Amino acid sequence: MHFKVRAAAKEDCKDISRMIMELAVYENMPDQVKTSHEDLERDGFSPNPFYECLIAEVPDEHKTKDGYTVVGYALYFYTYSTWKGRSVYMEDLYVMPDFRGKGIGTGLMAKVAQVGVEKQCVRLQLSVLDWNKPSLDFYIAKGAEDLTAKEGWHFLRFHGQTLDTLAKEAPKD
Amino acid sequence: MHFKVRAAAKEDCKDISRMIMELAVYENMPDQVKTSHEDLERDGFSPNPFYECLIAEVPDEHKTKDGYTVVGYALYFYTYSTWKGRSVYMEDLYVMPDFRGKGIGTGLMAKVAQVGVEKQCVRLQLSVLDWNKPSLDFYIAKGAEDLTAKEGWHFLRFHGQTLDTLAKEAPKD
Repeated sequence: MHFKVRAAAKEDCKDISRMIMELAVYENMPDQVKTSHEDLERDGFSPNPFYECLIAEVPDEHKTKDGYTVVGYALYFYTYSTWKGRSVYMEDLYVMPDFRGKGIGTGLMAKVAQVGVEKQCVRLQLSVLDWNKPSLDFYIAKGAEDLTAKEGWHFLRFHGQTLDTLAKEAPKD
Repeated sequence: MHFKVRAAAKEDCKDISRMIMELAVYENMPDQVKTSHEDLERDGFSPNPFYECLIAEVPDEHKTKDGYTVVGYALYFYTYSTWKGRSVYMEDLYVMPDFRGKGIGTGLMAKVAQVGVEKQCVRLQLSVLDWNKPSLDFYIAKGAEDLTAKEGWHFLRFHGQTLDTLAKEAPKD
């Protein structure tokens, strides 16, 4: 099937928001999604955006029964290694179920890699849940190293009350 | 001991570069550091910077035997959760050995949290190696959740040849 990968425009945020929810439903956690398409518009399409996004689009004749032609997305942002420099981090990669197995996921991810390399990024990084074996296998097959398994990296988070409490400990200017 | 936490300026990059190397030496991997202070200047102090940095400074009377008054740093950048929105990620937190146990590390981290909260970030995230028990304990004591232990997140990376190979698979525009 022919498909096109292109940079998302502000007008795509409703489609991106719809697919973020589809992915959350697949993961049985739809109530966890707190971002709206307005948040996505504000955070991705203003100066110093917090993320960039690519979308996969199919021709009109392949549109879904609900009339969608945007059938996948890859959302990413830039990070920084103090040892190696610029890196790119892929936060989400999603292709609608009916459009899987056609190279769209690989196309999106490869384009993220290309965009990163063009910006002199030396790494493409991402995180996967250990129960998500198909995804883990997909990335490993593409050449990713599992740094949690290999080097023992643990991923930590402050949020909610613990984040507020910590912020209040900041020294006065 | 009195200390001040402030946003790093371009002129601080030599100090930051020195401390990045000190941290790598502590981790027995000094040969892994490929960034120069010029890289740090370019990547952190141009439009759309790849990172931000805070430094901890002590008064002149407490300067090190080598004459340094910049004795710690926290390097961070912004990331994005498609479920929760804006987040901040702390890549490095370092305090020179002679200045530990004085609240400087907590001060730097709390200031990162404060900067993040001011930018409407809902999470402060970081990664720690599992053998680095003192650091892991420090963050957990401050309220961080270990998402690798709790939810099974694995951290993956493409780099070098695998990144180039992937980038070359990108669909043509």
